[in-house]
Amino acid sequence: MTVKLYGDERIDQLMRYNMEIIQSKSVFSFSIDALLLDHFSYTPSHSRAKIVDLCSGNGVLPLTLSQKSKSKIIGLELQPRLVDMARRSVELNGLSEQIEIVQADLTDAFDYIPKDFVDVITCNPPYFEWSETSRKNPNEHLAVARHEIHTTLEEVIRITSGLLKMNGRAFFVYRPNRLIEMIDLFRACHLMPKKLQFVYPKKDSESNMILVEVIKHGKKSGLKILPPLYLHDENGDYLPEIKEIIYGKV
Amino acid sequence: MTVKLYGDERIDQLMRYNMEIIQSKSVFSFSIDALLLDHFSYTPSHSRAKIVDLCSGNGVLPLTLSQKSKSKIIGLELQPRLVDMARRSVELNGLSEQIEIVQADLTDAFDYIPKDFVDVITCNPPYFEWSETSRKNPNEHLAVARHEIHTTLEEVIRITSGLLKMNGRAFFVYRPNRLIEMIDLFRACHLMPKKLQFVYPKKDSESNMILVEVIKHGKKSGLKILPPLYLHDENGDYLPEIKEIIYGKV
Repeated sequence: MTVKLYGDERIDQLMRYNMEIIQSKSVFSFSIDALLLDHFSYTPSHSRAKIVDLCSGNGVLPLTLSQKSKSKIIGLELQPRLVDMARRSVELNGLSEQIEIVQADLTDAFDYIPKDFVDVITCNPPYFEWSETSRKNPNEHLAVARHEIHTTLEEVIRITSGLLKMNGRAFFVYRPNRLIEMIDLFRACHLMPKKLQFVYPKKDSESNMILVEVIKHGKKSGLKILPPLYLHDENGDYLPEIKEIIYGKV
Repeated sequence: MTVKLYGDERIDQLMRYNMEIIQSKSVFSFSIDALLLDHFSYTPSHSRAKIVDLCSGNGVLPLTLSQKSKSKIIGLELQPRLVDMARRSVELNGLSEQIEIVQADLTDAFDYIPKDFVDVITCNPPYFEWSETSRKNPNEHLAVARHEIHTTLEEVIRITSGLLKMNGRAFFVYRPNRLIEMIDLFRACHLMPKKLQFVYPKKDSESNMILVEVIKHGKKSGLKILPPLYLHDENGDYLPEIKEIIYGKV
């Protein structure tokens, strides 16, 4: 299978799954965050689940999720340029039957996906609050992916809750400095955190990333805090556990 | 200094601080939780702060806090038997000028301490929800200390908030399975979590203890997740970091 590449696009490997993905330095490349979210999330392996990835970027999560489930997967992404990259990556991997990339604003999600319908949602939302005076990435595509320009955490969580069926699960990767705000919003939207995993850049550092699993209308108690994940050793190299998440078992 | 001991009471060492404390197997002994809370909490070292320890048990936190601050410290405890132990421990260490142990129900705290008055609160509250059918500790003293029989997390947090002055800090040790409930209650009482530290019994285990610092009327963002603490190595021995918390620097 060959696909067209534009500008500075290149084909990278998703090593763990032996898949290929179109990336671009100037437009969008996935980061370790996406691979940690993939590692953290789980789906039924059968073909009857409804799976959605929100803020899908160049489609990395739909691609990786397709290797864990036979179910249909929808990736929702606002930016046409990223949607186009994601669609070509889907084609490149021969997954057009299983994965659909929808170009839409989050607030229009219900035009494409019914309410109370989805079993599993993954989402790697923009992390940074945005105001007119924010220092944001001068690259428009990256700015939209990373800053709350076209959506906010509140909107992401509200739409997630609306899409999920009762007891449906959602998996997020986010920043710990906004965890309290995130929990407030989950609670306001009837999403109950069930598992938290904190990611630390290295030993003795504060956490700079969190992975969160929520259940729609879940019970209040019984939160589990999974063992922490460390990314790097003292030389700045990825630790074996992280290498396995990136490259698979060697 | 000698004090009377009753029943199966014994004098234990608070090794880190070279202090002594009266304990009793059948009535109350402090646990590692209290020492972790001591390690996690901080106070101004000067003599002008107002410091309060709620659910004070046999007074372990007032004793340890007295080594970090010259300020007056009040320990509030409901059970007369534990109050008596704590008072004798205060005497044993010659700290009667600095530490006062008040016997009172939490709900009567404002009869002894003015509202909006306190700079620093520490609290190791009962962890376990209680109902008529709960399996609780058959020992009355231990049951009250560990189960929500005479107080609840909600009451502890409400009283904490009432006692703290604006920007006052409180430090809690608690169980992660009730973290969401705890955060809900903090938020309802205008206490903003600023630091969280998760404690893991050993590598690859889920967390079984959390340390939380909150600030009254603090800002919503900027939560810090401190490096995790592991208690034991693979042989079940305390790790060096924990030994230092218990015994001090060797």
